[in-house]
Amino acid sequence: MDFTAIIGNIAAILTTVSFLPQAIKTIKTQNTASLSFPMYLLFVTGVTLWLVYGLLNHQTPIILGNAITLLLAGIILAFMVKGKFTKKMFK
Amino acid sequence: MDFTAIIGNIAAILTTVSFLPQAIKTIKTQNTASLSFPMYLLFVTGVTLWLVYGLLNHQTPIILGNAITLLLAGIILAFMVKGKFTKKMFK
Repeated sequence: MDFTAIIGNIAAILTTVSFLPQAIKTIKTQNTASLSFPMYLLFVTGVTLWLVYGLLNHQTPIILGNAITLLLAGIILAFMVKGKFTKKMFK
Repeated sequence: MDFTAIIGNIAAILTTVSFLPQAIKTIKTQNTASLSFPMYLLFVTGVTLWLVYGLLNHQTPIILGNAITLLLAGIILAFMVKGKFTKKMFK
């Protein structure tokens, strides 16, 4: 593996793994007040399309990375939707 | 442009643009309580490496997308660092 490929691999691992501490924090605190709902809506849609792109191109690293990111960002988005729903119910 | 390339381009635009509403919300509210600091630290480092990867490979879409994401995620991280510093000062 050449230097550029190593840089690309580390970059992919870091941007994928980064959503883990956010997902853990959101699950623990159930607080999503300062998270942006449109961000997670756009991001989850984008990552889903990246996954489709990887599947169409048979590119395993893109499939794997985006499947993990989709799971983590999906959990965060689910907590935000749950929060919005609960808020409405108790209004 | 074939179908797969169109999917990839939409995916790239969505995941890049998604950080804009979060950056706007963070600037407006200055509230970063439910944002994960390790997430933004890992993410900003990863996006910086993606930018380096794009520059080494002369891939304009990777350079452009990650430069925008770095700016937006960098603003959010800066507000988190500022918040931590202010908190310490008034303790």
